[in-house]
Amino acid sequence: MSSPSSHVGPVVGVVGAGQLARMMQQAAIPLGLELRVLANSPDESAAKVIVDTRLGDYRDLSVLREFAAGCDAVTFDHEHVPTEHIKAMAEQGVQVHPGADALVHAQDKAEMRRRLTEIGVPCPAWRTVETAADVADFAAQNGWPVVLKAVRGGYDGRGVWVCDDENEAATVVANGVPLLAEAFVPFERELAVLVARSPHGQGVSYPVVETVQEDGICVEVLAPAPGLDAEVAAQAQRIALKIADELGVTGLLAVEMFETTDGLVVNELAMRPHNSGHWTIEGARTSQFEQHLRAVLNLPLGSPSMAAPYVVMANLLGGDDPDIFKRYEHVMAHDPGVKVHFYGKEVRKGRKIGHVTALGADLDDVRARARHAAVYLTTGEYT
Amino acid sequence: MSSPSSHVGPVVGVVGAGQLARMMQQAAIPLGLELRVLANSPDESAAKVIVDTRLGDYRDLSVLREFAAGCDAVTFDHEHVPTEHIKAMAEQGVQVHPGADALVHAQDKAEMRRRLTEIGVPCPAWRTVETAADVADFAAQNGWPVVLKAVRGGYDGRGVWVCDDENEAATVVANGVPLLAEAFVPFERELAVLVARSPHGQGVSYPVVETVQEDGICVEVLAPAPGLDAEVAAQAQRIALKIADELGVTGLLAVEMFETTDGLVVNELAMRPHNSGHWTIEGARTSQFEQHLRAVLNLPLGSPSMAAPYVVMANLLGGDDPDIFKRYEHVMAHDPGVKVHFYGKEVRKGRKIGHVTALGADLDDVRARARHAAVYLTTGEYT
Repeated sequence: MSSPSSHVGPVVGVVGAGQLARMMQQAAIPLGLELRVLANSPDESAAKVIVDTRLGDYRDLSVLREFAAGCDAVTFDHEHVPTEHIKAMAEQGVQVHPGADALVHAQDKAEMRRRLTEIGVPCPAWRTVETAADVADFAAQNGWPVVLKAVRGGYDGRGVWVCDDENEAATVVANGVPLLAEAFVPFERELAVLVARSPHGQGVSYPVVETVQEDGICVEVLAPAPGLDAEVAAQAQRIALKIADELGVTGLLAVEMFETTDGLVVNELAMRPHNSGHWTIEGARTSQFEQHLRAVLNLPLGSPSMAAPYVVMANLLGGDDPDIFKRYEHVMAHDPGVKVHFYGKEVRKGRKIGHVTALGADLDDVRARARHAAVYLTTGEYT
Repeated sequence: MSSPSSHVGPVVGVVGAGQLARMMQQAAIPLGLELRVLANSPDESAAKVIVDTRLGDYRDLSVLREFAAGCDAVTFDHEHVPTEHIKAMAEQGVQVHPGADALVHAQDKAEMRRRLTEIGVPCPAWRTVETAADVADFAAQNGWPVVLKAVRGGYDGRGVWVCDDENEAATVVANGVPLLAEAFVPFERELAVLVARSPHGQGVSYPVVETVQEDGICVEVLAPAPGLDAEVAAQAQRIALKIADELGVTGLLAVEMFETTDGLVVNELAMRPHNSGHWTIEGARTSQFEQHLRAVLNLPLGSPSMAAPYVVMANLLGGDDPDIFKRYEHVMAHDPGVKVHFYGKEVRKGRKIGHVTALGADLDDVRARARHAAVYLTTGEYT
């Protein structure tokens, strides 16, 4: 880790300037790190709080190379950087974390299923499909509904479709994006495990959390997952650490799982700080953002232990009224212990514009406090 | 509180770009506030992490006026802005916190003693002095040693001299700065109380802490002050809240006190986030930096309750070896729970370049952890 001068810390380049990069800056300030961010526009969430903001297109390798020059490590706010560009940077000696060989499993869902199946991680039944007939074949074995997922990206902002019959499947197939078919998992609830792994191989796991979704969007995270059997929790952590190790992940890995009556099933992977880990900012000794920065710099990892018995995070989704600041006062007066996080983003209906965190010893109370703040901030309704 | 656009938070201008402004930025990011800082140079601690950094001389009223334009509130990283400039800004409608009438008590030690005496706050015996004979008169009543303090500022980086006799006093008097004489207080230990007060009059007090000094520099803060009698603690908090109220402080007020066998005696005031409150970043539900921002924006104040039974902060004072980053690894590996804060400042012998915080249930253990990290980071010595 080079130190160009005694009072300048290591430089970490972050490709993408959304709220994840913004929250990394909160962690970078005390660590004395210098963050550099590659943004599309100076109005983006992280660009507003990072002095060394560079504008450019992350799909352009020459932009990435120039951006990486002088960085002790390069990491990401999102998973859209082309795999071959990440490989090219690494070949030129840039410390890119996660590396291309790991990240591809968060970019390509077919690659992910192939590899997880290979290493014995529990997955739903799956296959790649090209035609509606392929989907029907798959359904003949696994039943309807079938979950179709775009292997990479998606279209119209969507990447997942739950199809009840061959007609619905045909409509999705007609869009021409490469697809993966998965058996629909009848789950009890959704869990997430966040782990960190550093290049020298150290791994840590945060406590398993429950994520609550509404209309396919995460609205609430409960840490730790209430009432989760200790052995199941340990198994979930072992699965996540195994994936990180086998895939060679460097930085954070979030593993989304279904809890079913037949055990745990892995749903999705993300290799970056994750919405299911925002609670760690106040709720854990080491926030996921600090942990990610430590991991990508190959520094020893921080303690993932909890700062309170229960921590609840609720997302702020943009409502009809764009002026969120006028509702600050009520929320702060109502609950002096609730923590508000705004991402500096323009309010649009349904968009994640921030989150709130509450912590304490009584789960019902903590959950009610987080919900009250989130609902009031976004709608002005008093719950 | 104006919101120029729905996704832009209130703007707070901070005059001075030291570590206090830098740590305010950590708190401003989640609150969605936009910080603007007035720096002397782009290399200063806060200038490195605040995008809207303006360069200029805080002693120049026209610079201050231009800086304040468009700010919802203006506050300070230090107490050196001329009182008359603060008055002039307020008269033009700028929300300056703390205001000139309050801040003068942190700028002018004679004003401070006059006012505290007037409102019945326990102070050491004191008088202003102009000659060595004045000091000798004072000593005849109160005994030697006599503590001489520069009424404003000081010289050669010093503002306090403990004089054992008239000759020593004569040397200090000869420098020509206006002086205050105070009786030397034989104290058991030093305490500090941090309170916040908002313009609408809400006040909160953090727990009373013990500050440990070496060679006149604070090296360690123990929160809460170990073994402090509950009634004395409550009295200390009442004194600090009373001072904030009587003086009309807006923002934070740190009250340094001596604990003596005859009770509490107020030593110094500071009206800004304070070294004795750095422990609150991880150690309290609301950090002093967030609290200050909430207060100067007239928002409801946050909970000052502690996040752990004991929190210890140790300052990092520059040692002989300027390369502090190379000692990161050991400290992080040795103690995954210790929190390191670097201020992005060049290492100079004796200069405050950062701090570390440890927290937990056992004071001796927490204190040893903080000390180990601080000593190792600054000297490389293993304690």
